[in-house]
Amino acid sequence: MAHRESLPALLRVLNGERLDPPPIWIMRQAGRYLPEYRELRTRAKTFLEFCYSPALATEAVMQPLRRFPLDAAILFSDILVVPDALGQKVWFVEGEGPRLEPLLPLTEWKLGEPEKAIQRLAPVYEAVERIKAGLPDGVALIGFAGGPWTVATYMLQGRGGDKDEARLAIYQRPNDIDALLDVLVETTAQHLAAQVKAGADCLQVFESWAEGLPPLAFQHVIIEPTRKLVARLRSLGVTVPIIGFPRGAGAQIAAYANETGVNALGVDTQTPADYAFEVTPEGMALQGNLDPQTLVVGGEALERAARDVLIAFKGAPHIFNLGHGITPQASPENVARLVEIVKGGA
Amino acid sequence: MAHRESLPALLRVLNGERLDPPPIWIMRQAGRYLPEYRELRTRAKTFLEFCYSPALATEAVMQPLRRFPLDAAILFSDILVVPDALGQKVWFVEGEGPRLEPLLPLTEWKLGEPEKAIQRLAPVYEAVERIKAGLPDGVALIGFAGGPWTVATYMLQGRGGDKDEARLAIYQRPNDIDALLDVLVETTAQHLAAQVKAGADCLQVFESWAEGLPPLAFQHVIIEPTRKLVARLRSLGVTVPIIGFPRGAGAQIAAYANETGVNALGVDTQTPADYAFEVTPEGMALQGNLDPQTLVVGGEALERAARDVLIAFKGAPHIFNLGHGITPQASPENVARLVEIVKGGA
Repeated sequence: MAHRESLPALLRVLNGERLDPPPIWIMRQAGRYLPEYRELRTRAKTFLEFCYSPALATEAVMQPLRRFPLDAAILFSDILVVPDALGQKVWFVEGEGPRLEPLLPLTEWKLGEPEKAIQRLAPVYEAVERIKAGLPDGVALIGFAGGPWTVATYMLQGRGGDKDEARLAIYQRPNDIDALLDVLVETTAQHLAAQVKAGADCLQVFESWAEGLPPLAFQHVIIEPTRKLVARLRSLGVTVPIIGFPRGAGAQIAAYANETGVNALGVDTQTPADYAFEVTPEGMALQGNLDPQTLVVGGEALERAARDVLIAFKGAPHIFNLGHGITPQASPENVARLVEIVKGGA
Repeated sequence: MAHRESLPALLRVLNGERLDPPPIWIMRQAGRYLPEYRELRTRAKTFLEFCYSPALATEAVMQPLRRFPLDAAILFSDILVVPDALGQKVWFVEGEGPRLEPLLPLTEWKLGEPEKAIQRLAPVYEAVERIKAGLPDGVALIGFAGGPWTVATYMLQGRGGDKDEARLAIYQRPNDIDALLDVLVETTAQHLAAQVKAGADCLQVFESWAEGLPPLAFQHVIIEPTRKLVARLRSLGVTVPIIGFPRGAGAQIAAYANETGVNALGVDTQTPADYAFEVTPEGMALQGNLDPQTLVVGGEALERAARDVLIAFKGAPHIFNLGHGITPQASPENVARLVEIVKGGA
């Protein structure tokens, strides 16, 4: 069934082609819903150790590809390797999520140097090389990083959840915030460029916490830093397509899609396809946006929701995906069925 | 400075008039940022007891009006008095928020009867009567309730935060969800109608958890129940304007504003005014949407953000408000300054 053109389907769509069926990959496709991943995960003591092991990260990436005929692989890593590499203490609490020593209580923020951070991230680029070497024909490799604001909020607050304190800092400490975002833009640009050099075919920027910002602040901490990030990537010689995923941005995705320079838009669960289509430039690829909960439920609800997404995005160059990461409660059988539905066309 | 027309400014704007300066009220204007509220709160053992005391609720409503020349008062109550009156156990954990005995773990949901719930809510309507009697001239009185889905999520999950489990139930138990929403629509309609009968000049429906729903589910649990709620209110003889506030709905506010029958739209912090203006019917009043954090910070950030909101909504009949409730960290001095800025015009 897979097209055998020289360019993987995912990259063709990122170049503006409409394919039927659309290519499909799944956010967090290498992850806890797979029993073989849970087994693999036990081979490293900490989650960061797992991320920094090229062998384990590579194996994690390959696991879903053995089960499902997916059109893309994505590097196994975490958006918080950037603050870790910049010297901020990062750890993961089982069942709760990441923790960092937060910047907000400190009067002075000591930020690391981008160049040194990139040196520390060498194992990530080694993983990219290994993954690339092992990928089946036609499967594109996606490199990724967190958006500057999303990573900054973790660094500021020390954890996920409510973003009110980070937002307060935008008003209270604008110069500190600018300095932090500048370091993140530069580090993230170098981090993504190194992934491309190691073999990534395209990039995704996860701006997972694009929600809740008033327009002025959205311009300040999302649009401007992302624009700088994309421009810096281009100045570093990176030419591959960049998918921006501003989760929760609501009606501000119009500004995001048109003003940052990203080449494709990740559409979250709640954003109607026709709205995304309407506010994005002609020919921009749209990626999304099945509700991850349908992969927990399966059955008729999954069939209906998957076909709804297929039909809704028919007018655009479309990459089928979820609107948010797959959850540990999802079943591999439901994922297999989803891929069948999508590959069978609407 | 206040207009002395017979109809309060808020109601004139709800009828489609553009006023300069716009009327202003503040979500949770009676609340913990006021020292006199914190003192008053100690006079009842539990938060629900406080809500059900007509004397205490009335005094809470009056407190901000003594400090600031606001254009509206809003009933002091909570959206969770509805499940409480329906017989579900509800309590409030200091500093954490509401807790309910959740429905989701139960195989059968025993739902209360709307008529009995309304009888239990008699103290709320007595509070409305007392507030109405004590209001200064020109100050409109707003009655309110939670949107059916928002109240349902609390009832399903037993608490705020992550709404994934409630969303899962939309797929897993659609018939149970429909039955629950039907009871909530009927109870909420009767609850709001009773507030109007007691003296409320207009109504606000807080759909605080309108976020994260895919379009099919949004139609199912937000649009349809809200449409039924508005229709039921009209069939009960309620003619006052209804403000719908679908917080976090992003680009789905277009459907909400056009398909539910609400008369005015509450705009959340992140929604650009020009987007709200563009997708709402001609002449629909828009309410919002200053970032509550600017009332914590004050100073230049507050001035700038407030003027930005004033200018952004100039084309519409506008009710100045926040985009979310005021926080306990806000200062009364900053609220006073905000009212000055707004009353002074842009």
